[in-house]
Amino acid sequence: MSQRTIGVTEVALRDAHQSLMATRMALEDMVDACADIDAAGYWSVECWGGATFDSCIRFLNEDPWERLRTFRELMPNTRLQMLLRGQNLLGYRHYQDMVVDKFVEKSAEYGMDVFRVFDALNDPRNLEHAMAAVKRAGKHAQGTICYTISPLHTVEGYVKLAGTLLDMGADSIALKDMAALLQPQPAYDIIRGIKEAYGDDVQINVHCHSTTGVTLVSLQKAIEAGADVVDTAISSMSLGPGHNPTESLVAMLEGTPYKTELDMDRLIKIRDHFSTVRPKYAAFESATLVDTDIFSSQIPGGMLSNMESQLKAQGAGDRIKEVMEEVPRVKAAAGHPPLVTPSSQIVGTQAVFNVLMGEYKVLTGEFADLMLGYYGECIGPRDPEVIEIARQQAKKEPITGRPADYLEPEWDKLVADSEALEGSNGTEEDTLTNAMFPGVAPNFFKTRDEGPKSVGKTQAQLDAERNAADTAVAGPIQYRVSLGGREHSVVVERA
Amino acid sequence: MSQRTIGVTEVALRDAHQSLMATRMALEDMVDACADIDAAGYWSVECWGGATFDSCIRFLNEDPWERLRTFRELMPNTRLQMLLRGQNLLGYRHYQDMVVDKFVEKSAEYGMDVFRVFDALNDPRNLEHAMAAVKRAGKHAQGTICYTISPLHTVEGYVKLAGTLLDMGADSIALKDMAALLQPQPAYDIIRGIKEAYGDDVQINVHCHSTTGVTLVSLQKAIEAGADVVDTAISSMSLGPGHNPTESLVAMLEGTPYKTELDMDRLIKIRDHFSTVRPKYAAFESATLVDTDIFSSQIPGGMLSNMESQLKAQGAGDRIKEVMEEVPRVKAAAGHPPLVTPSSQIVGTQAVFNVLMGEYKVLTGEFADLMLGYYGECIGPRDPEVIEIARQQAKKEPITGRPADYLEPEWDKLVADSEALEGSNGTEEDTLTNAMFPGVAPNFFKTRDEGPKSVGKTQAQLDAERNAADTAVAGPIQYRVSLGGREHSVVVERA
Repeated sequence: MSQRTIGVTEVALRDAHQSLMATRMALEDMVDACADIDAAGYWSVECWGGATFDSCIRFLNEDPWERLRTFRELMPNTRLQMLLRGQNLLGYRHYQDMVVDKFVEKSAEYGMDVFRVFDALNDPRNLEHAMAAVKRAGKHAQGTICYTISPLHTVEGYVKLAGTLLDMGADSIALKDMAALLQPQPAYDIIRGIKEAYGDDVQINVHCHSTTGVTLVSLQKAIEAGADVVDTAISSMSLGPGHNPTESLVAMLEGTPYKTELDMDRLIKIRDHFSTVRPKYAAFESATLVDTDIFSSQIPGGMLSNMESQLKAQGAGDRIKEVMEEVPRVKAAAGHPPLVTPSSQIVGTQAVFNVLMGEYKVLTGEFADLMLGYYGECIGPRDPEVIEIARQQAKKEPITGRPADYLEPEWDKLVADSEALEGSNGTEEDTLTNAMFPGVAPNFFKTRDEGPKSVGKTQAQLDAERNAADTAVAGPIQYRVSLGGREHSVVVERA
Repeated sequence: MSQRTIGVTEVALRDAHQSLMATRMALEDMVDACADIDAAGYWSVECWGGATFDSCIRFLNEDPWERLRTFRELMPNTRLQMLLRGQNLLGYRHYQDMVVDKFVEKSAEYGMDVFRVFDALNDPRNLEHAMAAVKRAGKHAQGTICYTISPLHTVEGYVKLAGTLLDMGADSIALKDMAALLQPQPAYDIIRGIKEAYGDDVQINVHCHSTTGVTLVSLQKAIEAGADVVDTAISSMSLGPGHNPTESLVAMLEGTPYKTELDMDRLIKIRDHFSTVRPKYAAFESATLVDTDIFSSQIPGGMLSNMESQLKAQGAGDRIKEVMEEVPRVKAAAGHPPLVTPSSQIVGTQAVFNVLMGEYKVLTGEFADLMLGYYGECIGPRDPEVIEIARQQAKKEPITGRPADYLEPEWDKLVADSEALEGSNGTEEDTLTNAMFPGVAPNFFKTRDEGPKSVGKTQAQLDAERNAADTAVAGPIQYRVSLGGREHSVVVERA
């Protein structure tokens, strides 16, 4: 039996710890696994993106550019892959095209090979410039479809979007399922549809989270439909809100017409490495093992908890059900954007405002921008009445063109801004860092010289916790305490 | 599109807590979920078996017969299902046929509907009598194939075994994958093979554990091949060494040519119930989330940890690798039995003995019995040299017939034995309980009147633990301590 080889992208160094432990893993906890990762036979290793960049400068006092340089040195034989938010780069606003060019050039120079370029609204115009920049740099431009479910999203629509991305020069197509919503049948249908429409040579990469417990089956059906590369995480960094286990994927394909070329001995070493690392970050982990609520609510878990805390802050924690019923209405008014950062926050916050203050009585600035086209186009038309409210409240006119076309050149100002900061080293890298995270970079530049600061626990702390838990099981503890030469019997119990 | 309905067996009340929390869940933690389980639309609810019976009388001071009666009352509309170890019933030796008859009659009288009958060696002669007894009682006799991997186990062999079970009158066939070894392709091939050989009307139930992370895909392929019923556990009682989540199965089939008839609102209530119960038993849970080692080692996790503790007890913890290499040799000598209770313990202990004392220098009584045919026949021939060693050491002759045919009538003696015990109530139920667990029942009979004793934690204990863990995070704690009228400031830190 001739077997088709399925490529694998390992996400342990980026999305796995982003999803499992709030992106807190320090570079020092990754370096010892890199030689094995480099030799394991992956198609690529995802290792950089918005949240990891942010976390480096916000929590870990690590220069994210140095992290990338280190990966390049430690994994010379592997394609390094990153997630790029199109015209947003790694930030939360649209950047003028020259900033996009600079970022892509620098990332390529530091050794990035594969750029997975996406847009939260699936507006191809927001990918266009970044994709072209990647191609000019001679790197792999992966055009991305964000998968979501709505009355307007269809298999045919996704297939058509793939065609647009291919016309744009995409070297491959990524089907990105950030909410673990991709069920086996649509996974099969979309990938089969793309292959049939544009040819079997079109490379398709599939990215699924494991939150709903069903997406390893979706990967199986995706592979049967012709998918070329799938994303997984080494088992000790897998499951829950993360990804399907790499070793389980290998086992899944044994005996089928498909195979991976992964080296199981290397996988075991990578697994063992991260199984000692993961407990250090347990404080950042959620308890979610599997959660299928999203299939009925259509609301990602992170968005839900965000809305809950907004309501609680307003003393209205009991109104979550109303907000959950409001979300689909707001989403429809906005033209059915996929609910992924930042659209999930924008729609969620507006739903909270609508419930607390009356429907569209007060708009957030971001929601007004969304309604006025400043984030781009969604799949559906936006509600004209709400557009009019946005126009009046925001005192801005709606736009219909590519959002970045409305921006003035800004590179020189960004350079001047960053060079004025204490601790800035005057490089374009620092300018880009500050451009994308202006609220965080200034402090990072000041403290950068102090070097990395891990937020993981030490082995001693883990041991102390285990002891404390053992103690708690036994209830109140009696101690003999010597104090001032006299012995006392003391019973200690937490108040 | 016409959709085929897939039945679902919920295992939360038996195998899920057996696999996740050492079978410790008390009846009181189940009763509040029963109304929802009864109305959810399951094909059956597995709720009784050897380990739950044992745990009731060993740890929980619960009468297992009363537990069954309670289930029957609380779930009047649902098929109750149990796992029956063929001629071993729920115990660890072969019982004479009349004992088997009595047990099946009593279980049926208490309301058991579906008897999943299996034998660790897959020797049909060990199922024959129990299956016939089930049919005489007018209940559903499910003939079981224990799935394993060896050089001798083939798809054709499993298909043939299914035929033998059908000839025996099996109302359905269970494919039982207790070690999460069943990969998608063999799952498909075996079920397709059975359906093609014996007709599409043959009902096939598939039972998989989730340990290796791959078996939800195996259930998908099993269903594509024609499987009729699959076993799952409600999500809050799923994954790890347990089973695939029920809700994920529902999501998996949406949009496919298959569907379940489960009521998602009920599933959510069941899930929420057990999500509050599970933490009470956290002390019994293993940390295993996913483990694919078994595909290379062929040694189930429980067997491995058992051998490790045997070695450690002998001060030879460093010889585990030798033992792991010895296991395949011992298994081959015994004719390749599936490694499941009790064969896993028998083979594992002998492998330890061989490494510590020299190959077959000392045999355990159980291994000698296995070699001499007293457990039945395996798929392969047994090593004649080792049979000869067993004959000499055990001073017993090899047998080739059905093991139970060599037993003398024993019912009257069992009655007399149990009636002599303090606290025995003189019923056939007590006779059966003592017959199956003679080392445990006498003490249970004595303490039965004291009523159930939960070993789960209370909410107060859980809160105390959480506080202790919080404290450990914060490091040293300062206390104000009043002692003899004087106030002291004391800093306490674990040494």
